[in-house]
This record gives sequence, C-alpha cells and structure tokens, in this order.
Amino acid sequence: MDALSDLYAALGPDACLTGDALEAHRSDASGTGRHLPLALLRPGSVADISKALEICHRHGQPVVPQGGMTGLAGGANCRPGDIALSLSRFQGVEEIDTVAGAMVVRAGTVLETAQNAAEEAGFLLPIDLGARGSCQIGGNIATNAGGLRVIRHGTVRENLLGLEVVQAGGAVLSHLSRMQKDNTGYDLRNLFAGSEGTLGVITRAVLRLHPLPAEIETAICTLDSYDAVLRLMDMARRQVTLSAFEAMWADFFDVCGGRRLFNEIPPFAVIIETEGDGLVPLLEAALEGGVITDALIAQSRADARRFWDVREVALPEAHLPDIMNFDVSLPIAKADTYARACREAIAAALPSARALFFGHIGDSNLHIMVQVPGYAHDDLHTVDRIAYDLVREAGGVISAEHGIGTLKRDWLGHSRSAAELAAMRAIRHALDPAGILNPGKVL
Amino acid sequence: MDALSDLYAALGPDACLTGDALEAHRSDASGTGRHLPLALLRPGSVADISKALEICHRHGQPVVPQGGMTGLAGGANCRPGDIALSLSRFQGVEEIDTVAGAMVVRAGTVLETAQNAAEEAGFLLPIDLGARGSCQIGGNIATNAGGLRVIRHGTVRENLLGLEVVQAGGAVLSHLSRMQKDNTGYDLRNLFAGSEGTLGVITRAVLRLHPLPAEIETAICTLDSYDAVLRLMDMARRQVTLSAFEAMWADFFDVCGGRRLFNEIPPFAVIIETEGDGLVPLLEAALEGGVITDALIAQSRADARRFWDVREVALPEAHLPDIMNFDVSLPIAKADTYARACREAIAAALPSARALFFGHIGDSNLHIMVQVPGYAHDDLHTVDRIAYDLVREAGGVISAEHGIGTLKRDWLGHSRSAAELAAMRAIRHALDPAGILNPGKVL
Repeated sequence: MDALSDLYAALGPDACLTGDALEAHRSDASGTGRHLPLALLRPGSVADISKALEICHRHGQPVVPQGGMTGLAGGANCRPGDIALSLSRFQGVEEIDTVAGAMVVRAGTVLETAQNAAEEAGFLLPIDLGARGSCQIGGNIATNAGGLRVIRHGTVRENLLGLEVVQAGGAVLSHLSRMQKDNTGYDLRNLFAGSEGTLGVITRAVLRLHPLPAEIETAICTLDSYDAVLRLMDMARRQVTLSAFEAMWADFFDVCGGRRLFNEIPPFAVIIETEGDGLVPLLEAALEGGVITDALIAQSRADARRFWDVREVALPEAHLPDIMNFDVSLPIAKADTYARACREAIAAALPSARALFFGHIGDSNLHIMVQVPGYAHDDLHTVDRIAYDLVREAGGVISAEHGIGTLKRDWLGHSRSAAELAAMRAIRHALDPAGILNPGKVL
Repeated sequence: MDALSDLYAALGPDACLTGDALEAHRSDASGTGRHLPLALLRPGSVADISKALEICHRHGQPVVPQGGMTGLAGGANCRPGDIALSLSRFQGVEEIDTVAGAMVVRAGTVLETAQNAAEEAGFLLPIDLGARGSCQIGGNIATNAGGLRVIRHGTVRENLLGLEVVQAGGAVLSHLSRMQKDNTGYDLRNLFAGSEGTLGVITRAVLRLHPLPAEIETAICTLDSYDAVLRLMDMARRQVTLSAFEAMWADFFDVCGGRRLFNEIPPFAVIIETEGDGLVPLLEAALEGGVITDALIAQSRADARRFWDVREVALPEAHLPDIMNFDVSLPIAKADTYARACREAIAAALPSARALFFGHIGDSNLHIMVQVPGYAHDDLHTVDRIAYDLVREAGGVISAEHGIGTLKRDWLGHSRSAAELAAMRAIRHALDPAGILNPGKVL
C-alpha cells in the first residue's frame, strides 16, 4: 500500500482528510504558501501521532507539522506532495500545578486558551504575542516564540520546563518534568524548541507559570532621539521592573495611528509597562532630565489598551500580500543607524517601497514591515538582501523570533557559519535519517 | 607518529606535559578519580585547542576536558590512557559591553574573576556558586551550573547569549552573539551547555549581565514545619523580588553551626535574600501569621556573611572522602516526604551513615550529603539506589545541577527513557563520530 492508504487505514476518515477542506492549510500568515497538502492528518492522540509518523517514515513520505498557521517565515507551508499534520485536535490544558507553578498543556491548545486557564488559577503564563487568539502552544514552542513579555520573562525557552515529542520513526520522547532545574543528559528540550518541526513533532509541554503581577502600570512617551530611547531604557532597567519596552520610529507610529494620542508625531514613541509601582517617578525623572518630551500614563485598562492598539494594529496589515515582515536582532546601540541605512537603501532600490520600523528594543529585536506594492519576486530578493547584508555588517542575526522557515533559509549563512550549518545538518540527519520532517525548511 | 608525539610537536613543551605535575588532574572534587592522565594539554589559544582536537580525532585518542576540577560527578576524571585538556591557560575577560549588558569571556576564566570584572563595570554576573574561587566559566557552562541565584536569574543557560566550541575534529563553531533573542537555526548553544565535555570543548562565551541590584536584604528565619517553608515561599514570591531562598533541615543546620545563630535548632531554617525593600514587612506578616517562629535580619554585610556561612560551611566537608553528595530535583511539595523516607531507608541499610538535607527549595532542588564513614563500594551503591529509587517514585530527576559525569551515569535511566537515551547517543555520534570526547561520561 502507499503511505496515504496506510494512514487512512490507521487513523480513520476523521483524521485523514483530502480535497477541498484543506485550503486553510495552504499557507501560514506570510501568505507565501502555494500548494495544498496532499492530505491533512488530524490525529487526536499521541498514539495516533506516533502511528502517523511511523507510517510516513516507512514510506519516506514528507510531513509538515502545522499549528495555528500564524507563522511569518513559511515554516508550515507545503511543497507538492507533502502531507500536513495538524495538532489542532490534540488540544487542552491537562493540569495546572499550583505548588510547582507549572501547566501541562497539549500542543494544539490555542495560546489564549492556555493564558486564560492560567489566569483563572491565579497565575500568569508569560508567553504572549499578537497572534494569541489563534496561534498554538506547539507552534510557539517549535519556533521558540518571543513576543511582548520577553524583557521580563524570556522567550518560550525560558518558560519551558518539560516537553514531549514524537520522532520521525514514531518513538515518543516524553520528559514532562516540572523541575526548575534538570541536568540529566543533553538538553533535548531546547533542541526541539525552535527546530521548526524538523527534528520531531511536539505533542505536550510543561510551561512555567508566574504569580500574577499585583499591579501593571502602562505609559506611552515621546522622545526626540534614539539616544534618548537608550537612556530611558537604562533608567528603566535600574529603577523599575520592566514588563515591556516597545519602541516605534516616527513613520511606523504615524501609520499606526499615533495622532490619536499626540498632536504631533515625535521622532520616537515608547510604550513602557512595569510591574509594581515606580513608573510615575521614573517618567518624572525622565521628563526633568530631558530624556522624554511627553508622556501619557494609563489611568485604566482601557487606556492601556488604547496605547497597545497603536503597537498591535499593524498586525492585521502584516497579513496583506504586499507586506514583507522582518524580525532581526541587532546590537541595541546600533538599531537606529541600521534603520536609517536600511530605509535609505530600500528607497534607492525600490522607490515605491515603504519601510516601517518598530520593535522590542529592550530585547535587541527590531521589526521591519516593508510595503512593496505589487511586488515581484526580484523585488523581494532585493529587499531581503538589503536588510540581511546590513544585519550582518552590524553584527546582528537575521531572525530574533519568527524563525527561518523557507523565507530565510537561503540567508541563514548570513548569521551562522558553514561549520555551524554542518553541525545542524548532522544533528538533523541523526534524528530524522529518512528526512521526512518538514523537508526544505530551516536548512 | 603516535598521538602524543604529534601533540608535542604541534603544541610545544609548555602545552603538553607528562609526569609528576599531573596530580591535580587526577580527580574532580568528588575525590573519585583514580588515574593520572597520560598527558596534560594546556593550549593557550583556540587555534591550538583546534589543533589538539584534530590530532586526537585522527588518532582516536580520548580527551577529557578539564576546568577548575570542582565538579562533584566525576565528569573530569580520566580513565587509563585518557589525555586531559585543561582550559586554564585560555583565560581572561575579553570585553564588557555595557550597552548590551554582556561579557565576552574565555572558558578558563575563574568564575570569581569574571564576577569581579562585571561588578567593577557596574553589573552583576548572576552565576554564583560556592566554588566561585576556583571553578571556571567553561566548566560552569559545560555542566549548566545552577547555584545560589537561580531563583532570580536562572541557571547558566538563562544567562548564556553566545558560545564558541571546538568540535572533536577541530572545527570551530563560533557564535558569539550578544543578542537576547536569536532564532537562527538549532539551539547549538544549549546543546553544548550541559553536555559535560562530550560534544565539544567550550572555548569562549558571551554571558548576560544584569544591573547591580540597588539593595540586597538578607534574613534567616526559623520554622516549625515544611508546610510552613512552602507557605513562606509562596508569600515571598508574591510580595518581594527573591534572589535566594535556601532551606536547611534541622540535622544539617545543627552540624553546620546553627547554634551560633539561634539557641535552639528549629525543624527548619531558611535564608531569604531579596532585591529592593520588602523583606521586613514580609517577615512581620509571616511572624504574625504563624508561618515563621523567629527571624534575624542582617544589619550589615558581615551579618549576611554570617548567615551564609552556615549554608556554605558544609562545602569544604563535601570534599572529604567519606561524603557522598546528591543534588536531586523533586516536586517541591514532596521534598520533605522524600527527605524523611530517604533518611529512614539509609539508616536502616547503613546504621553508621548520616544523611543531611538542605537545598535551593525555591528551584525544587534538594541537596543531600551522606556521610558513610569508611565506606566500601557496595555501601555507595546502596545509598545511590535508595536516593535515586525514591527520586524516581516522587517524579523527580537525579541531577538538578551537578550533572551526570561518571557517578550518575548508570542511574540516568531513572530519569530518562530508553528512547531519550537513544536520541542522545545519536546526537553524540553525529557530533563526535570517533568517540574521543570524554568517553564513558554521561551516557
């Protein structure tokens, strides 16, 4: 029998679909996927996921693991003939351990569902990003998602205690440890986290929970220079407990509705969020010291939401077909020099393009949205080359949080050496000798 | 030529020693090493480390990487015929990046030297452990060291931004990134961290620095039950910024000089350290609520040192030949049940033995020192079996921070499944096909 017949026989008709129902599985949120999967597997248990991978391994059938399809790197797109494996049916919070401060959760659980479950139990699940309403925990882990709370609580890796993964041949690696410290052999957990579905399929995780912060204060302030942004961040780091520090360059702030908050668009705007008190004295000192030029302090959750809307409103746009999204990491002192050089080079090469800059500056992470109306493939390549050549020059890396997927694969050599890529290939071959897991991605 | 002649020719007489000078390289601090290395390599550059490993790889010559020899798991001990590779001559802080909050440091640097350099630049290097005066950064990373500040800043992994490693064949993997977020391919950094010298030799690292905390408050309090310890920890987590939470069971506290602080030895004593204010109100609330029975608050650094001396005084004893050290992780609610069962079972099996319990309870990490006067090999095995069988029953793991080395190798199956061990072996073979790196360790 062929792979598909075996899969159908093993999983049943509900968990092995073909045909029209697959449109939603064509592309992640980058909009770059071109092909429908040959079939969609929707196993509802770890045993069925294991069966499916054993069959695919035996037939040399490529498999593309899929979560909420909110990625921006093409990592969940299929090539012709690939089978998609959706985790959506294996979902739910299995347990909240209030003593250990840990949650056991299935990979197909939507992030917001897990966040809400934590909050109901009196805890904060600190993983948070704009796509929270549709992205899934398994995808968050597979891409080592970053997001809005990294400055306080780290990326997914820093909040991942235990992991269960099904390997290419069907073997289940289950280490659902709740221990904060665990030095028992190699760190398989962090190897699978961020491997974008190429080393194994994540099925369950133990995530770290934190106490709910007693008080969150939010402000948005205006600044005259990038140097002032850096000075504000240094002051904030020393005086308060930062839970977010989001910088917006003027062009981004203007497009995203900054005029709803301030009469004039400043060179820079920063959203600051702190745990506990201390925000007002910090802003007073910054105003007196000439570091900031103005500030709005949220008096209610609705106020805070209005500030954040400016930062997050861009996200729906990010799904438009003529937007390219970059998420580079840069030495923090160089982010503005980079932004200027990048803006200038793109304008020179593609006069109709517009580049907007914003980012989690506290984490050395700069986002760029480049709008290239009606772009052709060559334009795309031109913008990639400009952005990534400048990143390499500045000593940054080409992906801070979105991952490599297909869209950055050919640029990975800008950030990792030939020896590193060879080591990664050796590890991949060791764990997936038949090469069935998300082939063509990352490496 | 044989390996030794090639090494001598390539590295020169200063970097390739044999004979009497090698006594210090016989055993780590567990005192379990029996054999002198065949030779000691002391290369002073990455190029020479690369040459040495290329030669050893070509000859199939086993190599044991060695740092400060402060490990407690036998991970740096040699078998007959092994060559030791010391990083001691490749030492020094290369750069402190005050904007990024990062330090570039060579593997052979003594931890305390790096801590002092950070402090002089106005930063905290949060990695800290009792052996700070002699352990080396490379060894700290190779074992993913934990220590005293994990509750606040995580283990080495959470403070490791970039890493340079020389592979078995001599290839140099250099990714000295200072980025807080870096999703460019597989997480080689965390794979090498904690691999105990079996996947590559760590040569350089970029470590994260934190602002120096404005104010540290320290107290030691007494409690009547383990339940009270858990309640105090929960209160502390919600009310203050904890930088240490160290629990001591009565027997440990007594042996280590608790009577110098309190007239009577309480069932439990806890050292609490906080950043910022809030410790006094916390202790007042805990006293009023009946959670603690007494507390001493440090009025000076000398006071704080006196409290910590009780906790750390045990460390010199740990090097005595008749002490066995355990560092297990346990579900935090079960630590006392475990301690009682373990103490009882050891007393029943070996009446002359004495087991003392203490630990970084906030990190779910329990240390046990078992004194078995004049023990024989069978006694050792008996104590291991008791401690690790009970850990497995409780759902813990056999090493929280010391690592596996040789002493826990045969017990690794208590914490990791056959499938996980097979995956680890596949990775090891992929990265060191000739099997020359620290053979016999971990797996």
